[in-house]
Amino acid sequence: MTTTQTNPKVQQWTNLAQQLRVDSIRSTTAAGSGHPTSSMSAADLMAVLLTSYLHYDFDNPKNPNNDHLIFSKGHASPLLYSLYKAAGAISDEELMTLRKFGSRLEGHPTPALPWVDVATGSLGQGLPIGVGVALAGKYLDKLPYHIWVLLGDSEMAEGSQWEAFDHASFYKLDNLIGILDVNRLGQRGETMHGWHTEVYEARAKAFGWNAIVIDGHNYDEINRAFAQAAQPNGLPTLIVAKTIKGKGVSFLENKNGWHGKALNKEQEQQALQELKHVRSQTYPVQKPENLQPAPEPAKKALELPKYDGKEEVATRKAYGDALLALGAANPDVVGLDGEVSNSTFAEEFAKAYPDRYFEQFIAEQQLVSAAVGMSVRHKIPFASTFAAFFTRAFDFIRMAAISRANIRLCGSHAGVSIGEDGPSQMALEDLAMMRAVFGSTVLYPCDANQTAQLVAQMADHDGIVYMRTTREKTPVIYGPDETFKVGGSKVVRQSDKDQVTVVAAGITLHEALKAYDQLKSQRIAIRVIDTYSVKPIDADTLYAAAQQAGNKIVVVEDHWPEGGLGEAVLEAFTQRDGPLPQVVKLAVSSMPGSGTPAELMEEAGISAHHIVGAVQALVRGR
Amino acid sequence: MTTTQTNPKVQQWTNLAQQLRVDSIRSTTAAGSGHPTSSMSAADLMAVLLTSYLHYDFDNPKNPNNDHLIFSKGHASPLLYSLYKAAGAISDEELMTLRKFGSRLEGHPTPALPWVDVATGSLGQGLPIGVGVALAGKYLDKLPYHIWVLLGDSEMAEGSQWEAFDHASFYKLDNLIGILDVNRLGQRGETMHGWHTEVYEARAKAFGWNAIVIDGHNYDEINRAFAQAAQPNGLPTLIVAKTIKGKGVSFLENKNGWHGKALNKEQEQQALQELKHVRSQTYPVQKPENLQPAPEPAKKALELPKYDGKEEVATRKAYGDALLALGAANPDVVGLDGEVSNSTFAEEFAKAYPDRYFEQFIAEQQLVSAAVGMSVRHKIPFASTFAAFFTRAFDFIRMAAISRANIRLCGSHAGVSIGEDGPSQMALEDLAMMRAVFGSTVLYPCDANQTAQLVAQMADHDGIVYMRTTREKTPVIYGPDETFKVGGSKVVRQSDKDQVTVVAAGITLHEALKAYDQLKSQRIAIRVIDTYSVKPIDADTLYAAAQQAGNKIVVVEDHWPEGGLGEAVLEAFTQRDGPLPQVVKLAVSSMPGSGTPAELMEEAGISAHHIVGAVQALVRGR
Repeated sequence: MTTTQTNPKVQQWTNLAQQLRVDSIRSTTAAGSGHPTSSMSAADLMAVLLTSYLHYDFDNPKNPNNDHLIFSKGHASPLLYSLYKAAGAISDEELMTLRKFGSRLEGHPTPALPWVDVATGSLGQGLPIGVGVALAGKYLDKLPYHIWVLLGDSEMAEGSQWEAFDHASFYKLDNLIGILDVNRLGQRGETMHGWHTEVYEARAKAFGWNAIVIDGHNYDEINRAFAQAAQPNGLPTLIVAKTIKGKGVSFLENKNGWHGKALNKEQEQQALQELKHVRSQTYPVQKPENLQPAPEPAKKALELPKYDGKEEVATRKAYGDALLALGAANPDVVGLDGEVSNSTFAEEFAKAYPDRYFEQFIAEQQLVSAAVGMSVRHKIPFASTFAAFFTRAFDFIRMAAISRANIRLCGSHAGVSIGEDGPSQMALEDLAMMRAVFGSTVLYPCDANQTAQLVAQMADHDGIVYMRTTREKTPVIYGPDETFKVGGSKVVRQSDKDQVTVVAAGITLHEALKAYDQLKSQRIAIRVIDTYSVKPIDADTLYAAAQQAGNKIVVVEDHWPEGGLGEAVLEAFTQRDGPLPQVVKLAVSSMPGSGTPAELMEEAGISAHHIVGAVQALVRGR
Repeated sequence: MTTTQTNPKVQQWTNLAQQLRVDSIRSTTAAGSGHPTSSMSAADLMAVLLTSYLHYDFDNPKNPNNDHLIFSKGHASPLLYSLYKAAGAISDEELMTLRKFGSRLEGHPTPALPWVDVATGSLGQGLPIGVGVALAGKYLDKLPYHIWVLLGDSEMAEGSQWEAFDHASFYKLDNLIGILDVNRLGQRGETMHGWHTEVYEARAKAFGWNAIVIDGHNYDEINRAFAQAAQPNGLPTLIVAKTIKGKGVSFLENKNGWHGKALNKEQEQQALQELKHVRSQTYPVQKPENLQPAPEPAKKALELPKYDGKEEVATRKAYGDALLALGAANPDVVGLDGEVSNSTFAEEFAKAYPDRYFEQFIAEQQLVSAAVGMSVRHKIPFASTFAAFFTRAFDFIRMAAISRANIRLCGSHAGVSIGEDGPSQMALEDLAMMRAVFGSTVLYPCDANQTAQLVAQMADHDGIVYMRTTREKTPVIYGPDETFKVGGSKVVRQSDKDQVTVVAAGITLHEALKAYDQLKSQRIAIRVIDTYSVKPIDADTLYAAAQQAGNKIVVVEDHWPEGGLGEAVLEAFTQRDGPLPQVVKLAVSSMPGSGTPAELMEEAGISAHHIVGAVQALVRGR
């Protein structure tokens, strides 16, 4: 192979790469922290990409034809911001605000910048999200944009990468290109595979990708690799680039101990001398063709399923029915599921709209990432699996919130009430997890009509929206025309003699209603509140109930005692003046095994029987 | 290749395999649910393993020489329990209690049974945990036991599998054997790769494993594969077995729609006829050699580091110092870290005790799994990474609790107080996550001496024990001889004129102390409580403070408002009679960016300034 650098653009690439290195150093030294050496290794790769392969309208980041450039190695943000400067998108002055309070240039990229699709910085997330964007590009938008993902070698240890590799080839995503910056050194020493680029090559190929091994500082090789990767050929491509961390500065090159460390002023001067301090120059970036996304069918009026109450219906079934209805009404709705669509009932959507359904198999990190990628392309993704298995993707949900993504998640099979399958399949921590996500919405319906209405609202709601559904069939207690809203609740039973308020949601609401009947026969009146919106919770209705019903509350939930409905109710009361009411929490406080739903709810202490006992004790003055 | 089945054991294997199929059907039909067909595909593999390769003393499951058999495809539990019956470990009568309330034979295996090492049922966990057991076997116990992991093909989509593959070859774990049951069918249809066994073979080889492709119903091939795999040759082995789901019964074989479904009585009769209903027979299982684990150095008295308070010390540094001290005292202590040991300070242990330190690179699922595997072998694992990145492993932590594992996790870089790196690196949900783990302990020290003492207690504490540490250096406020205990707290400031109680932990405790000084100059007395034990929390001290200081409490935490310290304090008050105090919660309620720790804490509303304001408002009657 000849590697003579005869391309006339070599001088431009060289100049730009040196400028990117200079700016990565200058900005991090000004900040006093950051990752200059991780930026320098990839500077040549990015110089060629920006000026010769990326199609991006920096004046219009919302142009649907723009390529997507995702820095999965988010700690190389100085390089990304230096690229933005080189493209003329930000000034040198702004570049120098890196990592300062109030700057858009955060330590790791976030969509505070309009050219950043998603927040990165938790490693191993850029590629799975890129898969989601690429699915949208190839199968929904049907536009020729490329998704370029800059990957670090350390992050190849994350299993989520291989979920992405698996799905990208399965779905033939030839619009997806991974650029692997093999600079050999991680945070505290050598990576597992050092400069053994053949390891990455073999793995990518075994996962059904093209793989091209290059010297990441040889412009001719870089150029040819990008040219080859950009040609659609039915497979995604991984460019495995052997690079040198700290490339371009003698005392930084391939040295351990320089990860995440800024140069001091003196070191900076020395480095800039070596780099032949180039002037701040702006480089033209090719704009994309002006194409239109694939036309969508017109939106239609939403016709939600209605349940007449003659039969019991599981809320998971109502979720499936409602998602099907949403699919008919809104062509932007996309379905995703983790190989359990016959349990979550996402299969109804999958069968009706196979072009908008993407099976994610048993890979929950990829499942959530695909939803985030769809959100980048302004789709309305609904992703479902067993609620317990969303714990697999917590880091991705956490990061999705930082990405300001709009995704809808539905977790089925919540709580001990699933019965015989046992604790591995029971979500008993999902409410805690999903409440502790910035700006999240957490819904937990108890009947089919309520579920359908809330699913419809999820489609229109921004941020991370989570719905918890129940495996078992439950009575339909609301009419099909009753309305429900995010942040609302329903007072299901009340009188002016109420002595205690029972707060419940989902499966336990039905236990509360049984308790109501039993207590009524004992001449004890309780108020029953259905807090189907766990976050935000309807604080006003809870306040009123406390005031009107003896300032005594029982909260009952099919969840561990921590972080769920009980704590959401307590939290609500901290938002008003004065002491809190007396609150008794009933929750799952021992490890369940297998059994019938009724046996397990009784054992867990959350059945009607236990609610009756708790109310009686409160009435007696405990 | 000749596949003539001339081995004299073939008849025994055949009989046993049919018995396993029969029992898998009988037990699930009796239960009315379960996974017979997923059991039947692997029956031949397990019949050969049990009678010819497994070394296990069923009378003494604690024998340190026993092999480990992990059913990663936990839904094949009927097969596992049928094996236990065939080995004489359980009776047919007990087998028929499958999935019934109170039975040890749960829907998915748990250590309620003494022969089960870890709970499975969340897919993709058995192999990474097997890596942990194999690390212990090869490098610590130095015993020749094997770890056999039965894998499903659906679960190969989980990224965690590839973390395990990567680590197993990196650490040359030739005592680890994966048995991949490629029955082609997942829960709702075909897997990604169907019967393309060459895909799994290529991937395993690319990840540095031996791979042997066989017909999983051909005893000769099975036998030779096990024989080859059991010979140590420096590499782990994957046996890729092409199998038929429902094998042995005509109307079940290779049929979709039979996942997770029991046969009815009529179908059962038909199936048993086809299987030539064999009698319940017991088969001898080879016992392991009677070897002793590698001798350990004697335990020594623990000499914890002491801090004189002249300099500020980060609690993460104190964690590293204390772990180092623990390592000197107790040879069972094992260190694990996710490639950030120079940030978590696990590097001190890693450098001093390289034989007991296992780098897990940037693979947090593997990190926690390795700790669980070490717990199986009765080591005392301490696993550390950034607290934010433990969210990557939430499903593994959740399952570790079901496994009754004893693991210690330390998450550094908690909260906005990390400063410039930005939100991707800030743990703001870890307390919510770790509180919502069954039986967990959650510690959050504020100074170096306290950290050291609590690290020592972690070593002796069962269950899932989590410590949250702080990036920034903080003042040392306790003397080296002060004592702290799990479930305790410290009243750091108090008088008989206290008007409000401020509850804090970790970094915010120092803000509370600053607030105390400022309020004192305004003649407002506050009580300051350091709730370093977030779970269990010291309810008694909180009650007493509320009673003695105006029934008004301010809780301040570097965490989202949901599920953290504030809700832990509220939860504590629900455990006593009567109305709760007035509680004001200060927590991070907007998305942080980059900035100095002080800027970010001020913006988040958790600085001394905000505490002062909250106390003033409460004193004024808000």
